[in-house]
Amino acid sequence: MRGLYLDSGKLALRADLPAPEPRPGWTRVRVLQAGICATDQALAKGYMAFRGVPGHEFVGEALDGPLHGRRVVGEINAGCGACERCRRGDSRHCSERTVLGIAAHDGAFAEQLALPDANLLPVPDGVSDDAAVFTEPLAAALHLADDVDLRAHRRALVAGDGKLGLLCAHALALHGCEVTVAGRHEERARLLPAGVAFARGWLEPGGTPSEAPQFDLAVDATGNADALPRLLPLVRPRGTIVLKTTTGRPTTADLAPLVVHELRLLGSRCGRFAPALDALARRAVPVERLIDARYPLADGEQAFAHASRRGALKVLVQLA
Amino acid sequence: MRGLYLDSGKLALRADLPAPEPRPGWTRVRVLQAGICATDQALAKGYMAFRGVPGHEFVGEALDGPLHGRRVVGEINAGCGACERCRRGDSRHCSERTVLGIAAHDGAFAEQLALPDANLLPVPDGVSDDAAVFTEPLAAALHLADDVDLRAHRRALVAGDGKLGLLCAHALALHGCEVTVAGRHEERARLLPAGVAFARGWLEPGGTPSEAPQFDLAVDATGNADALPRLLPLVRPRGTIVLKTTTGRPTTADLAPLVVHELRLLGSRCGRFAPALDALARRAVPVERLIDARYPLADGEQAFAHASRRGALKVLVQLA
Repeated sequence: MRGLYLDSGKLALRADLPAPEPRPGWTRVRVLQAGICATDQALAKGYMAFRGVPGHEFVGEALDGPLHGRRVVGEINAGCGACERCRRGDSRHCSERTVLGIAAHDGAFAEQLALPDANLLPVPDGVSDDAAVFTEPLAAALHLADDVDLRAHRRALVAGDGKLGLLCAHALALHGCEVTVAGRHEERARLLPAGVAFARGWLEPGGTPSEAPQFDLAVDATGNADALPRLLPLVRPRGTIVLKTTTGRPTTADLAPLVVHELRLLGSRCGRFAPALDALARRAVPVERLIDARYPLADGEQAFAHASRRGALKVLVQLA
Repeated sequence: MRGLYLDSGKLALRADLPAPEPRPGWTRVRVLQAGICATDQALAKGYMAFRGVPGHEFVGEALDGPLHGRRVVGEINAGCGACERCRRGDSRHCSERTVLGIAAHDGAFAEQLALPDANLLPVPDGVSDDAAVFTEPLAAALHLADDVDLRAHRRALVAGDGKLGLLCAHALALHGCEVTVAGRHEERARLLPAGVAFARGWLEPGGTPSEAPQFDLAVDATGNADALPRLLPLVRPRGTIVLKTTTGRPTTADLAPLVVHELRLLGSRCGRFAPALDALARRAVPVERLIDARYPLADGEQAFAHASRRGALKVLVQLA
């Protein structure tokens, strides 16, 4: 089959990739379209030394299994199924897991992929392919509500106005938070829900307002290892910072304010798909507006180049 | 009155200090003895640019107020009493607070100090002066149980075998945790509760065991800004790291494992005194064994020098 293949930091279209084999308990999926995520761009630069087909944001059609013939999206962590974590239903943290398009598991920038049956969810009829392809990143944004008591964190700052930052702002607004987005691109304000404030320059060196407002919650969705120290003074005592940023670079920060003000720093990765699909079915988040461009699989390398442009939003790779 | 006075990083005995004035709602306390804490040593090196009498671990006798004539210990944060935080009972995080011997508030290395009446607790008869002087650091250690659900964090690692590390190990063992202390001084094992394991070298560069055990909880009580990155691989997915370390130095760490494994990093400072006094009254923690030396106030500078020696435990300054 055809797909984009990443090897030693080089992404190339290949036509000789083996299609996934039928496997008990697993479903093969024909990919309809897939989104390029910041993680994919990092993988293409060597993050996690991944070799294989990248891509973990997709909508497809089940070729076999319990959802045969239906449109599906799929949670990306495939646990071993046998360890204590998997038995407790937390395959997202199984130490033996593979991760679709990220770790030892060929992903969505190919004609077919395979996932455990239990990872797949049917896409409701009212949810378009363009919306469904956002299920994974929207789930990651809505995951904020799993780890933070948002009733006690009403005043929220989202750092970063990229794709994930915008989705986090929507997720927090859906949960009734009073949201400010700190970013670079003022024109992004039109992609935000009504009532969300936009602050420019706060994340630049020395850009923190001298009379720093005190947020209950700050979400680092910048993708920048240097953002954290600039967020510390913006959070009230006993407030929370959620770190969504993963980079290959280390962060340097004076952590004394974290101790003195007893802040909580929470690492946050993937979320549950069901609440995300539910929000899409209710059209609660206009995700389609985040689509910047579409490329056929044959132009996958150009799609990645487009996604890497400064200020680019979601770039889709279309397979059908 | 006589006291140790810190100015521009120089500590000196002075005999001309003004005794605290009587003040409504505040109690003056005659200090019996006071302990030297790592924070005091940091202040003496310029941390927080503190000028005044340091010292915040003390036992004394109330000279007036509701506890007049009784032995007392005192919580060290004095809030404004008027702000939202103070009204909610959290003066520990009042932005206008003074902190005994640490911020805009003369402390315990002097014949007298003053604190709001509400900060003082009577010392039960069965608690010796030597035990009572540990109320503040033991409260800080027991504070772990306020912020972490220890029933879900049974396997605990305490990084650091200094005074605070040892108290944290006792606090966690009291709460039924299975505790390992990672430190430098093997002989400290005799100061730990029965059943606590001691691991040497884990915190040195490259010292992390290659088959890293997975703890539910790690407490950084090292006082070393470089410890955090060595703790990240030792904590299980969705586990917790409590940061007790404050230094003037920044920490550099690759925080990707925090995100990928969805760890929680909690800053933790002062705790409530009541549970600490209760533990001391039950003789649940043999704190007196942590006393390394005693000096009269007149030899306060030597006391600080002793406390700075590598491997020193608690050094007391005696005022009565």
